[in-house]
Amino acid sequence: MPYEINETHDPNLKSWVESANDPSSDFPIQNLPLCYTDVREEDVPEDRRRRWDGHICVAIGSKIIDISRAEIAVAIVAELPKSERGCVDDQLMYHIGCAAYRADPIWPQRLRLALSRFLRSGNRRAQDLVEQLGAMRDVNDPALTFNTPEPVDFGIRNYTDFYASVHHATTVGAMFRPDNPLLPNYKHVPIGYHGRASSIVASGTEIRRPNGQQSPPDDNPSAGPSFGPCKLLDYELELGFFVGPGNELGQPISISEAEDHIFGVCLVNDWSARDMQKWEYQPLGPFLAKNFATSISPYVVTMEALAPFRAPAYARPEGDPRPLPYLWSERDQKQGGLDITLEVYLASKEMRDRGMAPIRLSKGSTKDLYWTPAQMLAHHTSNGCNMQAGDLFASGTVSGPTPDSRGCLLELTWDGQGKPRKAIELPTGEKRVFLADGDEVIFKGYCEREGFRRIGLGECRGVIAPAVSPV
Amino acid sequence: MPYEINETHDPNLKSWVESANDPSSDFPIQNLPLCYTDVREEDVPEDRRRRWDGHICVAIGSKIIDISRAEIAVAIVAELPKSERGCVDDQLMYHIGCAAYRADPIWPQRLRLALSRFLRSGNRRAQDLVEQLGAMRDVNDPALTFNTPEPVDFGIRNYTDFYASVHHATTVGAMFRPDNPLLPNYKHVPIGYHGRASSIVASGTEIRRPNGQQSPPDDNPSAGPSFGPCKLLDYELELGFFVGPGNELGQPISISEAEDHIFGVCLVNDWSARDMQKWEYQPLGPFLAKNFATSISPYVVTMEALAPFRAPAYARPEGDPRPLPYLWSERDQKQGGLDITLEVYLASKEMRDRGMAPIRLSKGSTKDLYWTPAQMLAHHTSNGCNMQAGDLFASGTVSGPTPDSRGCLLELTWDGQGKPRKAIELPTGEKRVFLADGDEVIFKGYCEREGFRRIGLGECRGVIAPAVSPV
Repeated sequence: MPYEINETHDPNLKSWVESANDPSSDFPIQNLPLCYTDVREEDVPEDRRRRWDGHICVAIGSKIIDISRAEIAVAIVAELPKSERGCVDDQLMYHIGCAAYRADPIWPQRLRLALSRFLRSGNRRAQDLVEQLGAMRDVNDPALTFNTPEPVDFGIRNYTDFYASVHHATTVGAMFRPDNPLLPNYKHVPIGYHGRASSIVASGTEIRRPNGQQSPPDDNPSAGPSFGPCKLLDYELELGFFVGPGNELGQPISISEAEDHIFGVCLVNDWSARDMQKWEYQPLGPFLAKNFATSISPYVVTMEALAPFRAPAYARPEGDPRPLPYLWSERDQKQGGLDITLEVYLASKEMRDRGMAPIRLSKGSTKDLYWTPAQMLAHHTSNGCNMQAGDLFASGTVSGPTPDSRGCLLELTWDGQGKPRKAIELPTGEKRVFLADGDEVIFKGYCEREGFRRIGLGECRGVIAPAVSPV
Repeated sequence: MPYEINETHDPNLKSWVESANDPSSDFPIQNLPLCYTDVREEDVPEDRRRRWDGHICVAIGSKIIDISRAEIAVAIVAELPKSERGCVDDQLMYHIGCAAYRADPIWPQRLRLALSRFLRSGNRRAQDLVEQLGAMRDVNDPALTFNTPEPVDFGIRNYTDFYASVHHATTVGAMFRPDNPLLPNYKHVPIGYHGRASSIVASGTEIRRPNGQQSPPDDNPSAGPSFGPCKLLDYELELGFFVGPGNELGQPISISEAEDHIFGVCLVNDWSARDMQKWEYQPLGPFLAKNFATSISPYVVTMEALAPFRAPAYARPEGDPRPLPYLWSERDQKQGGLDITLEVYLASKEMRDRGMAPIRLSKGSTKDLYWTPAQMLAHHTSNGCNMQAGDLFASGTVSGPTPDSRGCLLELTWDGQGKPRKAIELPTGEKRVFLADGDEVIFKGYCEREGFRRIGLGECRGVIAPAVSPV
């Protein structure tokens, strides 16, 4: 069923969590993203220990509320009429947050409605309950740790990375094949590959510069490759999608059903070691150039919350082929895209030490992606490949048609075939072609539309730490 | 520490499980592989229900013994002197089988010694206990289901496929680049890529022929690609390695420590859709051509058991570069390889219906791999990528230097550039260039050496089912 605009998107709704009513907040009551947290017990006052016993939370304004506490979960579900509670009474913990992903595809809508009512201005009972239980913390509480969002506690199991930006594919292709930038399969196949699930980390985790092989010098190929710290470390700005119910092996998900299997989105930084990538990627694709770390924002912004911010599928210019039938549906063409603004900021260590604000490197939108999320998921399962609840797939670098919307340094500092790379000048006078140790990369994402509250995806941050000495 | 030959490898040892003493058995008492099984309760006599309550078993002769039953686990550990039991007394279930993988790298050795003593001829107490508890079943018991081996019950989390056979890489390379079959990185980089973990299935699972995109006809590229059942379905014969303790993100495993992190091996069939692969794989590598299914044999044959069957690393011909220091150790060069014979058999549906035995298509050995398992693991973690207990990595197609040792149909039926493919004739008169619906592919693996008992890896089987109608 389509994700529709309903009472939860009403821009006039306000919350008893006052900070949510600030128009600049990423997390107004119209958003309601889930996140997964731990609290260090030693930082909790003794009489409160073991009371932050659940991990599944909702972000609202500048606060995080633990909604997996039994008393709170019961109160949230009680916001629904009895006839709409479904089978949840005896499986509360399972359904709230943890498994909003799976099994019952109607549940995300119900959960959202119940949460919205629970958090609305005037719901004094809800406010009292949360305060009395100590189930609300500041998002910046130092005792709080954000985990990668995961439906059960074993981490993300399967991670796929697509290549859905035709602008990214064309710009990068032009570097290697100036006469033939885009490969012949691009406009037919949503190109993707498997990433590494184990090294997905939550925003804020330090990113260790990888060691790896770099190709022999161009002017002396017989010298052989060298091994050492990556010299061309880059970020890639991407949007990630969490899988909901998923499918059995051998049973494809059709394009018309695909959106029912997408639970929500997050920001993804697909850190990339360009020198290692260039040397290793033929013939089986990127490997060590990518799998040393992938950072994600810790909030799952649901497809429900994004209902007002849908966009048509990419407008293919005349001459581009129509997608094959398994990748085409009228609904998907009309509103299968998403209009999420994505921004990249950079702050060097020196900038942070001197109290300077990060500078913005680029700004783009996911509406410029050539393939919709439903097309990516339908393609992924078209051969029978099974998706599991909580699997993550990402868009690939989101680059737009203009130079200021390019989603990685490789593209931003590229100055055409044979010309030197164009360094980015920082306010300290430092220059960057690729990332230096101590640099912090910050992604932001948000949606804006006349007549609706702005909603945000939060941030995805990472600071580059120096490489370890090779073993 | 190196895996050494000890009392458990003594060829004169016999078991009270009589079938294990048959010289042709894959699972003599010198082997002791672990496997993970379920028993359908409805097939269990009522007074025995819920008594096959553990899933971790050892294969011995033609039997499977549930060693995770508390009474049996206690009795197995009691075979060790008290001083060698370590911390296991209070964590029996954790350590036996389930987590022989992790934490304490000495445990696999201890477990093997204890199991060997428990199962030896004359251990009447052990035999009585197993019989009394009904903890032994025939390997062919129809109520028994073999799962993919996994250290905990959430399945294999991360799967990587390498490309370690220089013969495979050269033969396949010659098809696409006759003048330059081997890419310049091959002899420096253990090439690998991430596979799909969710679609790894145990031997015996039916393999559904995938649907997918096939490239436009060579003589009419403007016709565009088509979508439908794969026409060039192939197997790939590989050896898989299960990771033991693993490493933290950012902390590489050195070549000299790498073997301590390899727990055991299995057979892997990396089913491949060649037509889909050719069209999709540029520039990010294979994706839907591989992730529809990967079959593995259900037995984890430990590196301990393989101690007598080690081989030197591949003897690089003069002119080949020496591996970079992070991939080179004296011990690994001397005995880092494995000499496991691998065979492929095929039986069409008609052959099975007519009671004909499968025919052998090829026979090779893992000693012909260009990279050792330790080199693959050291490379995989050299950038800080973290391995988790139970992760699987595979060798890539194991092909030898001769035509009868080629590990996939693509190579076996290749007849040189521009010439037609050479069909394989079956005893029914049927011909095969690639796999037909109903074909069963059977992999076998075993080790033989003068002065030692033959040990086997069991089998990895899969029958091809017809494609589903495209959605």
